[in-house]
Amino acid sequence: MAQKGDLMTTRSDIRVLDATIRDGGLVNNFMFSDEFISALYRANVKAGIDYMEFGYKASKELFDVNKFGKWKFCNEEDIRAVVGDNNSDLKISIMADVGRCDYRHDITDRSESVIDMVRVATYVHQMPTAIEMIEDAKSKGYEVTCNIMAISNAQEGDVKQALKMVGESSADGIYIVDSYGALYPEQIRRITELYMEYADEYGKYIGIHAHNNQQLAFANTIEAATNGASFLDATMMSMGRGAGNCATELLLGFLKNPKFNIFPVLKFIQDYMLPLKESGALWGYDIPYLLTGQLNQHPSAAIDYTNEKKTDYAEFYTDLLDK
Amino acid sequence: MAQKGDLMTTRSDIRVLDATIRDGGLVNNFMFSDEFISALYRANVKAGIDYMEFGYKASKELFDVNKFGKWKFCNEEDIRAVVGDNNSDLKISIMADVGRCDYRHDITDRSESVIDMVRVATYVHQMPTAIEMIEDAKSKGYEVTCNIMAISNAQEGDVKQALKMVGESSADGIYIVDSYGALYPEQIRRITELYMEYADEYGKYIGIHAHNNQQLAFANTIEAATNGASFLDATMMSMGRGAGNCATELLLGFLKNPKFNIFPVLKFIQDYMLPLKESGALWGYDIPYLLTGQLNQHPSAAIDYTNEKKTDYAEFYTDLLDK
Repeated sequence: MAQKGDLMTTRSDIRVLDATIRDGGLVNNFMFSDEFISALYRANVKAGIDYMEFGYKASKELFDVNKFGKWKFCNEEDIRAVVGDNNSDLKISIMADVGRCDYRHDITDRSESVIDMVRVATYVHQMPTAIEMIEDAKSKGYEVTCNIMAISNAQEGDVKQALKMVGESSADGIYIVDSYGALYPEQIRRITELYMEYADEYGKYIGIHAHNNQQLAFANTIEAATNGASFLDATMMSMGRGAGNCATELLLGFLKNPKFNIFPVLKFIQDYMLPLKESGALWGYDIPYLLTGQLNQHPSAAIDYTNEKKTDYAEFYTDLLDK
Repeated sequence: MAQKGDLMTTRSDIRVLDATIRDGGLVNNFMFSDEFISALYRANVKAGIDYMEFGYKASKELFDVNKFGKWKFCNEEDIRAVVGDNNSDLKISIMADVGRCDYRHDITDRSESVIDMVRVATYVHQMPTAIEMIEDAKSKGYEVTCNIMAISNAQEGDVKQALKMVGESSADGIYIVDSYGALYPEQIRRITELYMEYADEYGKYIGIHAHNNQQLAFANTIEAATNGASFLDATMMSMGRGAGNCATELLLGFLKNPKFNIFPVLKFIQDYMLPLKESGALWGYDIPYLLTGQLNQHPSAAIDYTNEKKTDYAEFYTDLLDK
């Protein structure tokens, strides 16, 4: 596939989605202050960000609302307390995890909601449920994406079948998700080309959600964009599970569309992200994450190791080799 | 140009050069302990690293030997105190800066030296002197590279003329150097293709030395490799001026040649790099470096800002825009 766009011009199909609360919430159990969320909303609007993801629509039967911050559940009234009727160009998304969401009940009709988009997160083996959730959200009036997670560990044949299923569904977009931060840019290039075949055939757009285990989240995001992906996930100061995600401040420096503005992002980082880090929230590239990424493993062992402030990297590596 | 190599096989032309002392020395004025240097040498040998750069051959007339560690000068006896006669597969390099090196006097004949390679670092406008230094080192028996710095700020016409001059010289290799950490992978791809044209015409190899201002040092290094570069600079834990370089631990995870071994690298990092960081040596990706990289500026302002532990990123950004 020919390169899409270049470094001098802009592409009208590019959308930046701020996933700071949603992926960052995995770091601090969604315990953000109201002031933080309000300031993030204002910063995103000013920065020209296209979508802001407020969090998950997690099942209140499965998860205790007293053990998590409210953005694990994203009640309509909690979002409205921040955005009112959201009189801005910023669209609002939430994520619904297959198997962890009472979507029929908890996701209301769009006409009653300030939410614009539902992103259905699924593993390859959960596709039938994912399709049901997609159709449910679509029938309620939402823009819908299907985010197929952990593809670095999936069989290519299964991924192709999943792409066909999403292709034939009502979903608007399909996301490449490198949950383990294991993929190199040349793999992202190949995967994006594969996803673009289905996108072109079925009239969907492609998105990318990268992790920074090997300091490749930004590189992989722009590699996917260059090969046709148009929805780009980013988080403030990379905040996200483990090694974190593609940093908004890196991505906006790369995108040339004059509607994007890095200044409010920098201001938000210094005023809110630095204090959050100082308060103990722990995320970002570190050697244990690099090692789980290199070995294409879930970052959970690295998260535990980093939280315990252990630095015996050689021992950690041999432990991983035994897994 | 077609991709060179793939993710499953190895390339016999790939060489990894450890530049920890040389570029890292810019962080701490080359004040490494003897134990650190000995351990680094042993770790590099065990890890299968191809070259280890001990530092600069800086002029003792221009620079006060009492104000810097010995690796700014790389006396023959100091290197021999670490490596003896270097009975290993690891080759030893030093860097000679145009205008800062008494090369005729300080670089002795190779038959008297344990050094294998001289890397001549030059800006585009200094090429005539660089060529003299290349011929001097070559006539003394060394492998020689020409490292053309700060090319993100150079005119393409000037770079092409410099490449022709190096091409016609006795140099063995030519380095792509992204001193400001300003280049994106697709620019690195284009630049590598350009350098490879000259390399093929004149029978040279191409190397890459990247900086991590935009978290792209590793991505740019493997992008250059994929497009034909074979000499890859890396440093332990990314140590290097400002945002640092491509991390050895990232690069060895990518390279599939069984001669490389990440284990001694991890051991060295935990035993020596972490204490060095804790002692106050400051390097690595941070937002001020990201901003000078985005704006294609020398990192000096960001280095000062970071050393002063300032975090008013928005103000720093507007200051940079005024430069």
